[in-house]
Amino acid sequence: MTDSLADRSARDAAASGEVHVDIVAGIATVRFAHPKGNSLPAALLARLAEEIRRLGTVTEARVIVLRSGETGPFCAGASFDELKSIRDARSGKEFFMGFARVILAMTRCPKIIIARVHGKAVGGGVGLVAASDYVMAVESSSIRLSELAIGIGPFVVGPVIQRKIGLGGLSAMAIDADWRTARWAEEFGLFSRVYDSVNALDSGLETFARKLARSNPDALSRLKAVMWEGTEDWDRLLAERAEMSGSLVTSEFTRAAIAAFEKGLSS
Amino acid sequence: MTDSLADRSARDAAASGEVHVDIVAGIATVRFAHPKGNSLPAALLARLAEEIRRLGTVTEARVIVLRSGETGPFCAGASFDELKSIRDARSGKEFFMGFARVILAMTRCPKIIIARVHGKAVGGGVGLVAASDYVMAVESSSIRLSELAIGIGPFVVGPVIQRKIGLGGLSAMAIDADWRTARWAEEFGLFSRVYDSVNALDSGLETFARKLARSNPDALSRLKAVMWEGTEDWDRLLAERAEMSGSLVTSEFTRAAIAAFEKGLSS
Amino acid sequence: MTDSLADRSARDAAASGEVHVDIVAGIATVRFAHPKGNSLPAALLARLAEEIRRLGTVTEARVIVLRSGETGPFCAGASFDELKSIRDARSGKEFFMGFARVILAMTRCPKIIIARVHGKAVGGGVGLVAASDYVMAVESSSIRLSELAIGIGPFVVGPVIQRKIGLGGLSAMAIDADWRTARWAEEFGLFSRVYDSVNALDSGLETFARKLARSNPDALSRLKAVMWEGTEDWDRLLAERAEMSGSLVTSEFTRAAIAAFEKGLSS
Repeated sequence: MTDSLADRSARDAAASGEVHVDIVAGIATVRFAHPKGNSLPAALLARLAEEIRRLGTVTEARVIVLRSGETGPFCAGASFDELKSIRDARSGKEFFMGFARVILAMTRCPKIIIARVHGKAVGGGVGLVAASDYVMAVESSSIRLSELAIGIGPFVVGPVIQRKIGLGGLSAMAIDADWRTARWAEEFGLFSRVYDSVNALDSGLETFARKLARSNPDALSRLKAVMWEGTEDWDRLLAERAEMSGSLVTSEFTRAAIAAFEKGLSS
Repeated sequence: MTDSLADRSARDAAASGEVHVDIVAGIATVRFAHPKGNSLPAALLARLAEEIRRLGTVTEARVIVLRSGETGPFCAGASFDELKSIRDARSGKEFFMGFARVILAMTRCPKIIIARVHGKAVGGGVGLVAASDYVMAVESSSIRLSELAIGIGPFVVGPVIQRKIGLGGLSAMAIDADWRTARWAEEFGLFSRVYDSVNALDSGLETFARKLARSNPDALSRLKAVMWEGTEDWDRLLAERAEMSGSLVTSEFTRAAIAAFEKGLSS
Repeated sequence: MTDSLADRSARDAAASGEVHVDIVAGIATVRFAHPKGNSLPAALLARLAEEIRRLGTVTEARVIVLRSGETGPFCAGASFDELKSIRDARSGKEFFMGFARVILAMTRCPKIIIARVHGKAVGGGVGLVAASDYVMAVESSSIRLSELAIGIGPFVVGPVIQRKIGLGGLSAMAIDADWRTARWAEEFGLFSRVYDSVNALDSGLETFARKLARSNPDALSRLKAVMWEGTEDWDRLLAERAEMSGSLVTSEFTRAAIAAFEKGLSS
């Protein structure tokens, strides 16, 4: 059996991850996927930011659902392969700017964004969750800010998480780079609704997204704007934060920690 | 049996709602009531703001208790009859300024305000709860920001709710215009104490209000002031918000949504 | 048996309280103790602020653990003996500046501070907890802002508590000067982890502090800095707050309330 060019191209795309968008009945679904736990390399982050910005201008997209590939976690965070390949502070900053740009695209998009969290979220993945406006999750979706464990910190995702759950919750998660349960996330307001199965989540999501898609679009866009009032300086803030992570990620400490962390994941 | 003029006048007042104030042993009780679920037409909002401002200057009022008519919910929010009668953005803004003025009167009043929440609170009613300093509620007191369901948004009440419970809680309630339980409100800090019956609530309230009325009045007024520090620009902010609601409420979308919502309530 | 000079000196120190610091394997432990419920007179507050500032410059101190004498509460707050001896607003302000300086030293220290809360915390003691970055507590550690009960208010500790748990939680605690449980403190993000025994707490603390002491020190210091971003004006703010408490504490109201409160404690 020989592969067609199209088959091979699809396989290559799947290997490096993909972002797919469709719009049905006013509901735009943005789906990102990567074979390594739906982690995010720079190319996927750029595609995500671009698609969310574009959907902000598409009238038929009344509400946006952010979801990821079905298998494994919702999002394992930054791509480890890319983190390991960073050689200097400048390219380090540029890598973390990828997350900054997705967060800015999400919070400034005039459409309400619902995150469908079907599994665990780590590091930058928690940032995507916090930058969503409404979060529907299954109760197995534990969350973790693992940054400190690899010698950096949750600098780029910190402001959006703090805005959602306050300093008490953020500092607990940031300093103790261990798992927190979905119920904890719900109590702190990071998750809006928690379901006991993916089926229940999808059924709840369908009903809810349809209802929002039928809501007054002017009310939705004004609501979106007022919820993120006061974040006008986040271009500057998140760039500063990306610079912090970028300069830490090239240290000897971080290189050794990433290697040890990855070994722990695979053992 | 013929009605005296006084009887008829009392009946008319009850039909359009009333605000009643008394002061006993240092405890000023402000009671608003309206036959339609203790909802708030413009005239009642104006009376409420005026009485709260006045009590701020009355030495004998050491603490203020805000309560409502016994039957039905604590507060059904804005008067539907008045919402439906709004014909242009200017009168729309003026209607929502009624809520803005009550919230400003409450947060700027130098006395601690305790809300006695004996039942459900909806929309603007949740705003009154959030603008109180201490909230005692029964556990059947579910809360709901229904604004989006009628094509507007919780714009005027948003800042005071966000200040009390954070963005995570506010966005969950604002986007999902459905009920949240009293326990949820307690976990997020909107309710300070939740009781399992109205009797227990009233007993707790009596003890607590008496204790506060005997507390150092200088300490209470300074405490009140520091709790609302940073809201000095809310005249401007809430006026902007009233303008948003006022312009949305006259849209075709909103008129149809209010009609459908009201039909749902009565079916 | 006769006492040596050294014995007597140690006994005198214990009677007026003490602050002890040691550093083992990168973990600096700051232990304060006072025979009256680990309460804090001015001299201990000054020592605490000084030691924390000093440890900020000591390279071998990779992480700081704040703990108190084993018996009784974690911290009973301000020293009652000293509160009672305050005769004018100026010395009142100076006394409360003692807490302000400890809070500023803690939040500006470049090291992560873990609080080990083995028992109850009251008033200023809750401030020390809130000014820590990570809080490990046993479930019997109830907390209480008792200030209003003695005629003052939680003015100096208010900003750091509000920053950690939001206005909903702070106002509930500040207005109702009664106990809140350790679970409540955990739900609101004041406690990061709650253990069911002191043994479990100490075991968790040892593991956790060791892990942090092995973490990237540059990442830890940047994380510490960003968590307290936006508190640059707290010198001014907390001085204002100390002035409020200082002027209230000399009133007749407060003197009588302190006497009654102390009587209640001892009965």
